[in-house]
Amino acid sequence: MKKRKVYLDNSATTYTRKEAVDAMMPYFYDIYGNASSVHKFGQDAKNALTDARIKFAELINAQYPDEIIFTSCGTESDNMAIMGVLKSSEGKHIIISSIEHHAVLHTCGYLEKNGYKVDYIPVDSSGKVMLNVLKEKITDETAVISIMHANNEIGVIEPIEEISQIVSECNKNRKFPVIFHTDAVQTAGKIKLDVQKLGVDLLSVSAHKFYGPKGIGILYVKKGTKISPILHGGHHEHGLKPGTENIASIIGMTKALELANGEIEKENQKYNKLREKLKNGIIAKIPQSIINTDFSNSVPNVLNVSFKSIEGESLLLMLDMEGIAVSTGSACASGSTEPSHVLQAIGLDPVTAQGAIRFSLGKQNTEEDIDYVLEVLPKMVEKVRKMSPVWNNRQD
Amino acid sequence: MKKRKVYLDNSATTYTRKEAVDAMMPYFYDIYGNASSVHKFGQDAKNALTDARIKFAELINAQYPDEIIFTSCGTESDNMAIMGVLKSSEGKHIIISSIEHHAVLHTCGYLEKNGYKVDYIPVDSSGKVMLNVLKEKITDETAVISIMHANNEIGVIEPIEEISQIVSECNKNRKFPVIFHTDAVQTAGKIKLDVQKLGVDLLSVSAHKFYGPKGIGILYVKKGTKISPILHGGHHEHGLKPGTENIASIIGMTKALELANGEIEKENQKYNKLREKLKNGIIAKIPQSIINTDFSNSVPNVLNVSFKSIEGESLLLMLDMEGIAVSTGSACASGSTEPSHVLQAIGLDPVTAQGAIRFSLGKQNTEEDIDYVLEVLPKMVEKVRKMSPVWNNRQD
Repeated sequence: MKKRKVYLDNSATTYTRKEAVDAMMPYFYDIYGNASSVHKFGQDAKNALTDARIKFAELINAQYPDEIIFTSCGTESDNMAIMGVLKSSEGKHIIISSIEHHAVLHTCGYLEKNGYKVDYIPVDSSGKVMLNVLKEKITDETAVISIMHANNEIGVIEPIEEISQIVSECNKNRKFPVIFHTDAVQTAGKIKLDVQKLGVDLLSVSAHKFYGPKGIGILYVKKGTKISPILHGGHHEHGLKPGTENIASIIGMTKALELANGEIEKENQKYNKLREKLKNGIIAKIPQSIINTDFSNSVPNVLNVSFKSIEGESLLLMLDMEGIAVSTGSACASGSTEPSHVLQAIGLDPVTAQGAIRFSLGKQNTEEDIDYVLEVLPKMVEKVRKMSPVWNNRQD
Repeated sequence: MKKRKVYLDNSATTYTRKEAVDAMMPYFYDIYGNASSVHKFGQDAKNALTDARIKFAELINAQYPDEIIFTSCGTESDNMAIMGVLKSSEGKHIIISSIEHHAVLHTCGYLEKNGYKVDYIPVDSSGKVMLNVLKEKITDETAVISIMHANNEIGVIEPIEEISQIVSECNKNRKFPVIFHTDAVQTAGKIKLDVQKLGVDLLSVSAHKFYGPKGIGILYVKKGTKISPILHGGHHEHGLKPGTENIASIIGMTKALELANGEIEKENQKYNKLREKLKNGIIAKIPQSIINTDFSNSVPNVLNVSFKSIEGESLLLMLDMEGIAVSTGSACASGSTEPSHVLQAIGLDPVTAQGAIRFSLGKQNTEEDIDYVLEVLPKMVEKVRKMSPVWNNRQD
């Protein structure tokens, strides 16, 4: 089979689609004013910003355009959600799941060292947070709960609506409300976001996961939510995020989400088909493969598989030489030799967790890509296993 | 005279030059990997990032590429400089000038409310910080000094090298060093930055002031400087700035600074000539105009003028109707009805400060633009003054 380039790391980042880049162009050359400037150059930029805010609000079914705060990335949105709420809250207690992205996890780690209490809610073997535990952990001191919408490593979708109900129930009788944040970086463009239905107070999105440009995101802030800025400067974005507005990228992101929302059904059908084919091929061709993704409850473009007696990193490098790009987990954790905290949280032992590969499908992927992977992957797994003393001494 | 569009607000923001946008393109479509990913798509992105870091380091004469931390904007750089140093320092005292940009000023305002002591160093009538006062204010508690390289409203250039010497002198005999930061947002592309000659520990730059894209900047961090991240997440940018690297914008910014550095002499000659012409025309044609910019010590593209008995905002709006875009001060302060803190610091009374207009020249401006302004401006000033009771009852 002829060697091909197959990018299966779309959960790490996507290319930027042409329609988004085209939409950005006028904002480099013509409508380049500072949206805070009073003159026409500034007001033209401001109008574009306002239109984008209205459009983005519609796209996630926010009630008011002003609930959209444009940020520089998902990480900034997550940091702002948690630290911004704490700055405005009397509470010193945070609840998150044990499988959050590092932007949430490390923010909480930092806060833990600085006088805050953090509870990490365990998940079941599919990755779903244990709601009964979550419920029990809420105290009068709880300021913020942050549970991701879908996990970046295994794709599991969390029961956000149910958590919202728990939060709203407990908020009926409190001195100050618990604020509920969800990191929707992995679902935007794959699930049609509806912040009102989800019932969240805060929600993070990053453009470069749905074919928008890198370096731009949003934090949805439900009207009335008490939150403070974490950076200081001008009064941009309703005083929540200072800095000259990055109009070109805001326009590009909004265009990308608009298009993605319109294509969700078609794309998800394709992802479901390709993922099923990939999974079945792996199970048929590669012994001792463990599927870590729950197909009944996950974003359809993610497939996480552990190959027994393998270092995921070695397999990744061998696949890379054949033109196939996958990951061992989060790109943000790369360079770390620790086994994934997500895979350990769903019950994998450290060795099996180390043998995991995440395949994440994207718009550009075809059936031929999967055929190629199913041709190459078994050989590579065999090759890596041949080098493994554990595999060679196994007793099965 | 035929109406034209004259953009004279280049200190607020510039258009993005075509060479920068062209340089960005491959990073949207082809080299789109996550620079933290291990596979070739990621490594291609990482190589581009490394090359940009080396190039940027050269452009500001940093000693090591790793001294360049890519950020999402000048505001983030300034926040990181001050709050990041404080997080790593034993000191609780900050020294800034009284004419800093809001990104520094409001960060310090926030810190003042949270247990830190801030001293604001006065400036002389040209806007230069008073070095003797600065020297006196340094105590054993001083953690960071932040003095801008050039001011955004009046263009004055601060004596950064002299301050570095003061700092380095006082650092000879201390428990922990004073860290010296300069906001060089208004000088990058107008003065060839040389961080070693300037002698600073930290320096902020923002791309959209020199024809690069919005939403990208750097913080120069001299090797050995103790500083902590202010956002939390992945280990990007040597652990100082988490979030997927915005390669396209990084490449665009680096290209823009490379080109700007090569054009400094030519452009500055042009700016000097146009600014001189504008100033002379204003003085000749408009009585009671006060030049707030010190021509002997300022970036050459800025001219700040107060017109007596005028509301700058009214004049701005009338000029805007004639196609001329200027500002009354900082775009980041727009919407505020307070007279400029900068103009008051150089000794203007609040009314004269309110009558100020900043003209800031850019690459696109021509002699014809200035001719047009000198045709329109006197009429508009007269028109606004005619509506002013103060002007009509004056005794001169």
